[in-house]
Amino acid sequence: MLDDEAVLFASEAFYRAFNDRDIDAFEEMWAADDAVACIHASGELLVGRAEVMGKWKRIFASRYSPIVEFHEPRAFICGDVAFVISYEVSGGRTLVGTNVFRRVRRRWRMVHHQSGRVAATAPFADAPRQPPAN
Amino acid sequence: MLDDEAVLFASEAFYRAFNDRDIDAFEEMWAADDAVACIHASGELLVGRAEVMGKWKRIFASRYSPIVEFHEPRAFICGDVAFVISYEVSGGRTLVGTNVFRRVRRRWRMVHHQSGRVAATAPFADAPRQPPAN
Repeated sequence: MLDDEAVLFASEAFYRAFNDRDIDAFEEMWAADDAVACIHASGELLVGRAEVMGKWKRIFASRYSPIVEFHEPRAFICGDVAFVISYEVSGGRTLVGTNVFRRVRRRWRMVHHQSGRVAATAPFADAPRQPPAN
Repeated sequence: MLDDEAVLFASEAFYRAFNDRDIDAFEEMWAADDAVACIHASGELLVGRAEVMGKWKRIFASRYSPIVEFHEPRAFICGDVAFVISYEVSGGRTLVGTNVFRRVRRRWRMVHHQSGRVAATAPFADAPRQPPAN
C-alpha cells in the first residue's frame, strides 16, 4: 500500500471507529505515548493521552454525539509524519479537520486532531444541497 | 538550540511576520514545495503553495487584518516534523491554532496552519480579563 493510501485509510478508520462508537479501536489508533493533542470544534484544547482520551470517552458515552461523515480527504506525507485534511459533516454542520499521524512500527498512529467550523457552505462535491428556491 | 526551542521560535516567527506584515519573511518561512495547506478560522481551506500564499497576501493587504497575539504555545516533536498548538487572540476573539513544521536543511518550515474559534473563554494566563461587574 502506498503511503498516502495508508494514511487516508488511517484517517477513514478514525471516523469509522468514532461512528461505530468502538472505543477500543479508537484508543488503539492514537499513539500510545503522551505527545498527543486534540482541539475540538468547540475550541477545547486537550493535551496528553489521559486528557485527550478522557474527553473522547465522554463524547462516546453521550447520547447526543453525532455521526461524522468526511469528504474530500487529502493526505500530505512528510516522511514518518503525515497529515490529512478533510471536510467533516456532523449534525447538519460542516466542519474542516486536520488529522496528524506518526508512523510507529509501520502503523500510522494519530498524534493530533483539530476540527473547526466552516462559516460558509463548504465546496465539496457530496454535500447535501439546498433545494432550489421556487 | 533544542528542537522544541527551535520549533517554538519558528512558531513565534510566524506570528511576528504576520503582525509586522512582512510578507517576504512570511513566505520564506513556509515550505517552498506544494505540499502545504492552510485552514483559516472562517473554515476556508487552501491547498498548495499558490492558493495558501495568495490568500495570505490578500489578508496582508487588507486594512482590516488584526494583530494576533499567541499564548501558551506547546511543541510536539516527531523527528523531522513538529507541531505547535497555541491560543491566538485576535480582534477580541480567542482562537486556537495548530502550526505544523517540517525540518528542511536544519530549518523548520511551515507546512500547515489551522486556526479555529474557541466557544468559551480560553483558560490561558495572559488573556485580557473582563473588568468585574460592579
